[in-house]
Amino acid sequence: MKIVPAILAGGSGTRLWPLSRADRPKQFQKFMGDTSLLQDTMLRVAGNDAYSDPIILSNEAYRFVVAEQAQEVGVDLRATVLEPAMRNTAPAMTALAAIVAQEDSDALIHVMPSDHAIETDDAYWNAITAAAAAAAKGMLVTFGVSPDGPNTGYGYIQSGDSVGDGVSKVARFVEKPDAATAQRMLDEGGYFWNSGMFLFKASVFLAEAEALAPTIADAAKASVAQAVVDLDFTRLDEAAYGASPEISVDYAIFEKTAQAAVAPAEIKWSDLGAWGSIWKASERDADGNKASGPHTIDRAKNSLVVSEGAHVALQGVEDIAVVATPDAVYVGKLSESENIKSLVQSIKANEDTATMATTHRTSYRPWGGYSQILNGARFQVKRLFVKPGAKLSLQKHHHRAEHWVVVSGTAEVTVNEDITMLTENQSVYIPQGAVHRLANPGKILLEVIEVQSGAYLGEDDIIRIEDEFGRN
Amino acid sequence: MKIVPAILAGGSGTRLWPLSRADRPKQFQKFMGDTSLLQDTMLRVAGNDAYSDPIILSNEAYRFVVAEQAQEVGVDLRATVLEPAMRNTAPAMTALAAIVAQEDSDALIHVMPSDHAIETDDAYWNAITAAAAAAAKGMLVTFGVSPDGPNTGYGYIQSGDSVGDGVSKVARFVEKPDAATAQRMLDEGGYFWNSGMFLFKASVFLAEAEALAPTIADAAKASVAQAVVDLDFTRLDEAAYGASPEISVDYAIFEKTAQAAVAPAEIKWSDLGAWGSIWKASERDADGNKASGPHTIDRAKNSLVVSEGAHVALQGVEDIAVVATPDAVYVGKLSESENIKSLVQSIKANEDTATMATTHRTSYRPWGGYSQILNGARFQVKRLFVKPGAKLSLQKHHHRAEHWVVVSGTAEVTVNEDITMLTENQSVYIPQGAVHRLANPGKILLEVIEVQSGAYLGEDDIIRIEDEFGRN
Repeated sequence: MKIVPAILAGGSGTRLWPLSRADRPKQFQKFMGDTSLLQDTMLRVAGNDAYSDPIILSNEAYRFVVAEQAQEVGVDLRATVLEPAMRNTAPAMTALAAIVAQEDSDALIHVMPSDHAIETDDAYWNAITAAAAAAAKGMLVTFGVSPDGPNTGYGYIQSGDSVGDGVSKVARFVEKPDAATAQRMLDEGGYFWNSGMFLFKASVFLAEAEALAPTIADAAKASVAQAVVDLDFTRLDEAAYGASPEISVDYAIFEKTAQAAVAPAEIKWSDLGAWGSIWKASERDADGNKASGPHTIDRAKNSLVVSEGAHVALQGVEDIAVVATPDAVYVGKLSESENIKSLVQSIKANEDTATMATTHRTSYRPWGGYSQILNGARFQVKRLFVKPGAKLSLQKHHHRAEHWVVVSGTAEVTVNEDITMLTENQSVYIPQGAVHRLANPGKILLEVIEVQSGAYLGEDDIIRIEDEFGRN
Repeated sequence: MKIVPAILAGGSGTRLWPLSRADRPKQFQKFMGDTSLLQDTMLRVAGNDAYSDPIILSNEAYRFVVAEQAQEVGVDLRATVLEPAMRNTAPAMTALAAIVAQEDSDALIHVMPSDHAIETDDAYWNAITAAAAAAAKGMLVTFGVSPDGPNTGYGYIQSGDSVGDGVSKVARFVEKPDAATAQRMLDEGGYFWNSGMFLFKASVFLAEAEALAPTIADAAKASVAQAVVDLDFTRLDEAAYGASPEISVDYAIFEKTAQAAVAPAEIKWSDLGAWGSIWKASERDADGNKASGPHTIDRAKNSLVVSEGAHVALQGVEDIAVVATPDAVYVGKLSESENIKSLVQSIKANEDTATMATTHRTSYRPWGGYSQILNGARFQVKRLFVKPGAKLSLQKHHHRAEHWVVVSGTAEVTVNEDITMLTENQSVYIPQGAVHRLANPGKILLEVIEVQSGAYLGEDDIIRIEDEFGRN
């Protein structure tokens, strides 16, 4: 019997700001290589006989990027479930279990974050095999990573009596400890880092949820019963789901159930929860530096450079993180990078910079996307990129006129009653108020430079007349 | 009798990279406020009765920016002298003396760098008065700044016997010392930092140059005799000037002459020679930080942020310099920022980054300038800004077509035989090979977004048919 992988991909953390922002958070970013962390997670389970096609849990805002990233790496999804509200992991996992149970209540579910680094070596498969055996016997299994130091950034699990297959009962869960407590646990032994992964039988999880957290169970099950399936997306019912309290599965179920178990996992794992963990999980050069993107390093040590913007020139420093995007550069003490929250809050709290905390210069859309490249007082310049075969909505603007210059590919442009084809080096003018649409009828990416002019240039000055992605 | 200020503004240092680059070096940059260091220097002398209008010594590449910056602050220049080749300060100052001597061989000349910070308080004027008195008596006067610590970044002057007016003979010049030597000089007393400023009588300087460095004196005097005056510029003769050896005035004259004197100057002075000196010369906040441009600082200390590009978010660091421009971000140890040379050399040595060492994204031209805002494979986007009344050359390109979209102001556009006027939100297409010209007939700045398309987009694909600035 195959295990159903359930990937949690709804988070919008800013601990890796300025790269991770709410409009394109960490799990979708490709800063570690050619694939995103979500894609790495999908590929970890796809094509392995132990697993069936994955279910993704995410939300409305990320539905297109989830679909696109699955398609990019050729992974078929069993379903993409969209949470209508953030209610933390307890209702989310209950809803997932209810969905899986609709087809097979005895199915084993492996719940996993979408933004951690894990190597799927023998140790990984040994842990999965052991956890699956225990789950089949009715345990709710967590995965405990063997600590390699007194880390204060993770929760811990103390193991208790063995239940066979190398799996033990959970003696207790320990919140992120202080340094002394972490050291004591390490010295004492029998403690593991809580990896945030779970493996259990759908029916067992649902029974425990009903017994230990009935309000959550009722809300989640109702949200599934009334869910609407639209294109490839399963939308949980908003009213039903919203009735659940917001609570983590650890608090609501795992700390209360008598069936909690821990499968020790001698795996290479990182939660990649701060720039310091990224650095630690990376291959560094002889000076202890890790750099990606354009950079020059002169006599720096134990530092991290990630650039998706300007060329970063680093000299003479030690223990420094530099993360450059087109609009923001973070420079911090690498070993204290878990403190970034207060910095991001300052940026959010300031009217002039608030947008920068949550929104990138490049926005992705189901048809492609656009980058803001210049903002003037009464004009803006954007670079639009439209996927082959895709079209934007039929739309108009009250307050702005637009010039489009095609710089790559072929555009089909509708302006009021006229439809024209433009190729590289041709342009068109869209007067204020004109109904217009941009489409890419070709086989290669269409790139257009858009110059907007007008007294008001906000993204909300858009009246959609027709949209094939069902947006208003 | 008024002192003739002679401002040396030909340097192209990269010690303040990435802000200072050969195409717009430090003295022309406005990173300390609304005025550049050259403008600060001009304003220091202009409008003060002690000085006549300044002479600027610079070179061909910087002639328009010198003129523009003088005009911006309303300073009349006596002359802008252009060196045809870099030959260091000995021939440059000899040529200056020869130019001044043409009108008045007894004139006093105050030679000063264009990129230092000096406060013109009472101490400054006391030093000038004393130096002028000594110079009038035939001394070649240097200015010695009282050291406030054992600085190893400056040359030192040891003072000898008094010549009256608080001025002393120079006992000897000391090259940039090591730390121990610097400390010993400080303990011993009678040593001053060599400020790089000089005050002397034209005839005295010329006589000493002829006596001590006849090859230099002959070359410099010949270059002045054969100089060509063009518009507001005095171009020294290239062949004559080029015959001089390249040598500093310290080596060639001041260390040899018996007439060298030092006027002690208790002035607030910095050579602003590295990011560390910029920080030191700035007003810092309670945590010792100095920041200009968009930034957020959270728990950083004794650090410097200068941004003309992205928002810089600094957290938890100490003794760090961050200098951000649109294409490059420097992050270095502030207290070791004088080591930047090796870093810039690495960047210069690498084919992919060499341009970044010498050239900014924004280029200034006598008619205005342009910023590169996006570079694609077969296209480029630039923002052109044209001053009121200015016009670009009449030109054509073999390999590229251009779209111009006016986003601010009014443009007069010539394409082959046609001349049209465009206002905000109108555009024009310039086909490959078409003879064209852009002009601003209006009273406000003209801004144009230019989209270039073609297989070759280098700046050298430009055939100038007519140019009012005399460029080819």
